[in-house]
Parts: sequence; structure tokens; C-alpha cells
Amino acid sequence: MNNYKINLEEKDIPKNYLNIMYYFQKYLGKLPDPPLHPGTKQPAGPADLAPIFPMELIKQEVSLDEFIPVPDEVHEIYKQYRPSPLYRAYNLEKFLGTPAKIYYKYEGNNATGSHKLNTALTQAYYNKQAGVKKIYTETGAGQWGSALSIACNHFGLECEVFMVKTSYENKPYRKVIMNMFGAKVHASPSTETEFGRKILAVEPDSTGSLGMAISEALECVVKSGGTAKYALGSVLNHVLLHQTIIGLEAKKQMEIAECYPDIVIGCCGGGSNFAGIVFPFLADKLSGKVKELEIIGVEPASCPSLTKGEYKYDFGDTAQMTPLLKMYTLGADFMPSPIHAGGLRYHGMAPLVSFIHHEGLMSARAYEQEEVFKVGVDFAKLEGVIPAPESTHAIKAAIDEALRCKETGEAKTILFNLSGHGFLDLKGYEDYLSGKLV
Amino acid sequence: MNNYKINLEEKDIPKNYLNIMYYFQKYLGKLPDPPLHPGTKQPAGPADLAPIFPMELIKQEVSLDEFIPVPDEVHEIYKQYRPSPLYRAYNLEKFLGTPAKIYYKYEGNNATGSHKLNTALTQAYYNKQAGVKKIYTETGAGQWGSALSIACNHFGLECEVFMVKTSYENKPYRKVIMNMFGAKVHASPSTETEFGRKILAVEPDSTGSLGMAISEALECVVKSGGTAKYALGSVLNHVLLHQTIIGLEAKKQMEIAECYPDIVIGCCGGGSNFAGIVFPFLADKLSGKVKELEIIGVEPASCPSLTKGEYKYDFGDTAQMTPLLKMYTLGADFMPSPIHAGGLRYHGMAPLVSFIHHEGLMSARAYEQEEVFKVGVDFAKLEGVIPAPESTHAIKAAIDEALRCKETGEAKTILFNLSGHGFLDLKGYEDYLSGKLV
Repeated sequence: MNNYKINLEEKDIPKNYLNIMYYFQKYLGKLPDPPLHPGTKQPAGPADLAPIFPMELIKQEVSLDEFIPVPDEVHEIYKQYRPSPLYRAYNLEKFLGTPAKIYYKYEGNNATGSHKLNTALTQAYYNKQAGVKKIYTETGAGQWGSALSIACNHFGLECEVFMVKTSYENKPYRKVIMNMFGAKVHASPSTETEFGRKILAVEPDSTGSLGMAISEALECVVKSGGTAKYALGSVLNHVLLHQTIIGLEAKKQMEIAECYPDIVIGCCGGGSNFAGIVFPFLADKLSGKVKELEIIGVEPASCPSLTKGEYKYDFGDTAQMTPLLKMYTLGADFMPSPIHAGGLRYHGMAPLVSFIHHEGLMSARAYEQEEVFKVGVDFAKLEGVIPAPESTHAIKAAIDEALRCKETGEAKTILFNLSGHGFLDLKGYEDYLSGKLV
Repeated sequence: MNNYKINLEEKDIPKNYLNIMYYFQKYLGKLPDPPLHPGTKQPAGPADLAPIFPMELIKQEVSLDEFIPVPDEVHEIYKQYRPSPLYRAYNLEKFLGTPAKIYYKYEGNNATGSHKLNTALTQAYYNKQAGVKKIYTETGAGQWGSALSIACNHFGLECEVFMVKTSYENKPYRKVIMNMFGAKVHASPSTETEFGRKILAVEPDSTGSLGMAISEALECVVKSGGTAKYALGSVLNHVLLHQTIIGLEAKKQMEIAECYPDIVIGCCGGGSNFAGIVFPFLADKLSGKVKELEIIGVEPASCPSLTKGEYKYDFGDTAQMTPLLKMYTLGADFMPSPIHAGGLRYHGMAPLVSFIHHEGLMSARAYEQEEVFKVGVDFAKLEGVIPAPESTHAIKAAIDEALRCKETGEAKTILFNLSGHGFLDLKGYEDYLSGKLV
């Protein structure tokens, strides 16, 4: 039997992120529709985004360069937790009795416990370079908020987080991490903003949504008079760009394993961990380096933007302050059920992911939370990692594909992104184990 | 700058545990005093221990062989999470401005989040081999209980855990992990046992202790009529033996770093993670391979067995059912304060660790919980790992030694064991951050 883990060395951490837009232009001959200014309905230019993002990140948002460098300072911090390991899921394969080979890239070995730190560091770095003093953000399950608080601490920035209220109450430990790294955290909707107070006036018991929390964070940025900026943990092009470090490392590791995936799978909330594992392989497909590649995005049935949403321009937030984004969306006022235990609660899907779905370059599917938590427990028992509820969606799809291989006898190679661990999501597991999940 | 992480490959996982008893006999010419039968006060023989442990583990308890093989089946499971990484704490060194080199071995990358799984697997394996159906145990903070539940699940054994009540209430997530892996968990003192009911009759609000929980587990084993055995997560020789895999790996990693530690540090509860990192280096000192080696054990000021206990024969449990062990002890009825947030709450210290302390081969110190939680937060910010409160004791000592080097100008090499992560101890951190720790 070969190795369970395929490790790279620190010198193998990629020096550049991979920009999928380059491949869209060069090989598809087209690009996703641009963001529109909500007032004029004209393409939003750098000037429209400058109040909320530093210029370097805005440039990355629209860049058509193939590679964009990882800043040296960020590369140095990456060494604390990257390269992340690639695992061969031998025990899972054996349990399923499948001829398929299952690999997973594990992003949980850092103080956030998820992939979110990859982009948080880069965003904090460019904000620091631009003289920004403070970053406002929103967070759902709390992975993004804790990642940004860690990144801001590294670069000496203040950080203030609006956390979706249902998570704030049910995932208190993630709030502790944010506090530990010096961030302020509010349950959203909050009384800190006009928008929050307006929501609470109408619905005092609102459990919150990512759309609302984004609106609150943006309102604070606008009112800061230029000293503060905003950071988003998913959805936007530059965020997905930074996550490609996952797939770039995974490609090197698959080379060591002398394998190339037939199927690449990621769970989809805003789209960043999915894009992170998928885009470097998609680039090979677009450029003709590989002929066959199946790409699968997996989302929760309770927030099914890719499988039930509409591909159209929509706002990124509930208060309709953001530019209009062309994406699969359930509507900016969509409220996921508060009983939904996992993350992946955003009403829309990253424009880049929406684009490849619309172009027929990937398929999407949705699972109920009961079935993914079951898979999470099975996976923990077999592979010795307690997965984040988000990541269990990807595991479930990998298992279904491996079982399909068992039927057909095909020895396909399946790769998925295990985007984080579930140590801070054990309340969800407890509810599942005690039959309280609906 | 060199690498932050020094990884080994799976083929480097040691095939044997290292038995420090061999070195005591060969190089010191003496052995620790043996356990005594509580009735006869004569040395307890295998027959005395056979009702609670399988014979293979009893043999390991008294073996004088230098090496004891890691069972193949256990070695295979080790590959899921071992070898564990060795880190150079560059950022901590820089922050302290010390000429010292600080290395730490990190045991947190598994589903328990601590070193406890190393011995849990071996113990479950030998119980399975002996035809045992069920294992009873106790757990304090819950790391041991979750480790044993994972190990029992691997080998198809039932597992039932008595968890110290204050931890049961304050660390609910560890209970979820035990349930996830199929174990039953009771808050101890419980109504499940005569001993528990007796305690509750006198003191209904008892917050519990490890000594009490051990008594409850032992009572269940005795009543099982031979189908169930008992397992302990620390203290006994065979448990410490299994943990030497930590130090054996660390030695190989220090070789790669072309360094040998001047100082080796571990935190001390029952003694297992301390022994795990220390014994393989102590063996070098005993055999004369190295001349100078400072060994430091660190315990909480609220449970100071090494620094304030007496070296004498004492019971391992409150109900006085165990053999008498020669150890530094605060008394089998010692009750650590329930406000103590970390683990390391056992009234005694492993006989092997007590022996080397008594022989003057190590030094011991105790820290208050306020100061170790502060160090935990600093360490998380600098090194990107949130440490378990237990492990912060070792970090604090490493920092103090590094600062001493700063004063003297000595460039010593310091190695400590970061025995686990703190994701499931964030309540303690929250109390610290909000000034609620006493």
C-alpha cells in the first residue's frame, strides 16, 4: 500500500496564483459579464470599487494575466500551514468496495481550521499596503471572520465582524477565536448600523443572513470616511484567485501520486473553496492539456443557488449596496432556514463559478443536511478527520461517484477539497446524532 | 531562513516503542519501586492486574526489553496522522528576541486533537486480541475519552466513559466526539455505579475528579464478569511507553534539522505526553550518548503533584481500588478546583516520571492558569496554532528558558511537546479573555 499522505515541502508552495480569466479569454474567447453599477447599470469601473477595496485587489478583480504573484510577506506566513496535505482515502475506498481512487486535499490544519486563511492573508496584506487602518467584514458560520481576524492581527489592522445571528448563537467558539485575535464581533442584524436597526424594527427576532451582514459591514465602511475598507471571504474574482493555491498544490501532489483526476469536486457556498481546487484543473481542460475532466459543485438543498437559482444580475447584499453581479442567485433577500446547520448559506454563487456552470463546464447537485452529516460521521470513523459540515457535501458527492464506479467497474480518480475541520461545528453533529436535525 | 516544518515520511514512523525501564536497569542499576497489592502490600503480580488489563499490556507494564514492537495494525492506523510535524518556532523566537532555537512537536493533527490517540489505539488493539468486548474508562478534559472512543471504533469494541462532571458540563464538544465514535458517556460522579451514588448522596453537587471517575470505571469492569476491561490514558508504564513514538520521531526530525536539544520540556498531568517527548532523549543521556540534557516538567499550580506532592505509595483512584503506586501525589482524595480550566488535574504523577524526578534527572515547575492562557493567545498569534491549555504550560516554560538565553546570550536548542490543539477548549480562552479566570 502506498502513502496515505502526500506532503510537499515549503519550497513547493506556489509563488503565483492562477487566474482562470486568462484561460476564459484565450481558450473560450469570452469572459463573464462584468459587474454593473447599481445606479447607472453600466459596467462598474475601478473608481466604483475604490471606496471599499484597495486598488491592488481591484486590479486583480479584472486582471487577465495568467499568473498573479503571491506577495512575499504572505508566502512567508503560508509556510506556517502550507503546503497542505493531500490524502488518499484508502479506508473510505475499502469501505465502499470501489475500484475508484479517492484523494482529498485537506485545508483544516491552521488556526481557522479552513481554507479561508489563504485569501484573508492576501487581502489584509494589500489593505495594509494601501494604508488602510481597519477592515469590516461579515461572516456566516464564522470561518471567514476568524480567518480575517488572524490575517489582520498578522498585519496590524483592526478588524470588525458582523456575524449572522444564528451562527453567533450556535457557534460561539468561532467568536472566541475572533476575539482571541483581537477582532470585534457583532451578531447581525445588529444595532450598530442603520440597516441593522431597520431590520430589527420590523423583525426583532431575525436570525440574520449573509446578505444582511454584508450590508451592515458596507455601511460601516462608507461611514468610516476612507480609513476603513471591506473584505469578502468568497464570491469575488480576487478571492477565488487566492484560493487557487489549493489546486496548484494538489496538481503537484497528484503528479507525485502519478495520477490525474477524472473528477474534481468541491462544495459550493460563495464558491471559493470549490474554485480553489477546481480552477487549476479546469485550466488544463480549457487549454486542451487534458481531454476529459468532470467537475462537480455540491450545495445544500436548503440554499440551492446553482441547482435552483436563476442566472442573472443581482445584488450581493440585502440592502442592495453592492454592484450588480451576474450570477446564479436565489434573490438578494433569500433567507436560508435557521435550522440549517452547515455553512454554505449565501444567496448567490461567485460570478466565475456561475459562468463555468452556465457554459456547461461543470455540473451541480444539492444534498439534504441529514445525508451529509451522516457522511461526515462515516468519514470521521474511516479517515480520522472530523469534517466541517460544508466539506461533507463534497465528501457525499465523492462517495456517490465512487459508488457509481463500483457499478460500472471504472477505476476513476476522484479528487475533492476537504475545506476544513468540524471541531467548531460539533453542535451540528450533536443535533444530527440526537435526531434533532430537520 | 530554513523550513518551519520538518516532516517525516510514513516509512519513518517508528516500528518500536522505546522502553525507558531498560535504560534504568542497564545504566542506573535500579528500577522504580513496583506497584503493591493494596491488601497484602506485596508487589502486585500479573494475576492482580489480569482482571482489568489484557495480558499483553501487563507484560509491557513490567518489561525490561529495550524495544517493544508497534503492532502492525496500529502502525497502519498511525499512518493516517503520523509522523506528526516538528516545527521551528521562528516567529516566537523573533518576538522574544532570543538567540535560542525553539522547536515543538505538534500532536494535534488527528480527530482527538491530542497525543492520546497514540496509546488508545495500541490499548484497544491488545484488548481486541484478548477477546475483550468492551472497555470502560474515565476522562478529565475529554481528550483521553475521545481518543479511546476512536480507537475502540477502529477495532470494533464497545466503549463507555466516565467524564469528570465539571468537564462534561464545560467541554460538551468532546462528549459529542465520543458519541460520534459510538461511545457512551456519563458525567462523573454518576448514578451508574455504587461508588458514584455514594459520593452523590454525601455531596450532590460534586464536580468530580479523575480519581472518582477511575473508581466508577473500575467498578463497572469488576461487575462485568470478565467481558470488559479498563484502560487508562496516562500514569501507567505501558501508556507512557506507547507515547515514546513522539520523542522517537522528534529525534529523527532534530537530526534532519542538524540539532540536538539542550532542553526538553513537556507539560505534566498524569505524565504521558511529557514522557512521550522526553524518554527517547533521556535514554541518550542515561546511556552517555549525550552529556548535557535539561529536562523540565511543567504542571498547573492548582494541581502541583511534582512540585508540592509527596513521593510515596498512594492509590490511583478515590475509592482505593487500584494497586498502590509509588509516585509524587497530592493524595488520592485531592480535589482540584473546578474553576481550573485546563486539563492536568490528576492527583498523582506517573511512577516512571516520579522516579526520574526523585533521581534528580529532571526539574519541575508550576504555573498559574492566567499566565499560561496569556501565553496560549500569544502563541496562537505568532505560530498560527491555538494550543490546548495543557500544552500552554510547556510553551510558557519554553518561553522562560528562551528569555533566560536572551539574558545569558546562550543559543540553546529548546524542544517542547505541543500535545494538542485548543479548538475544544475555547471556553477556557473565552473566560481568560473576559477576565473570568481566577
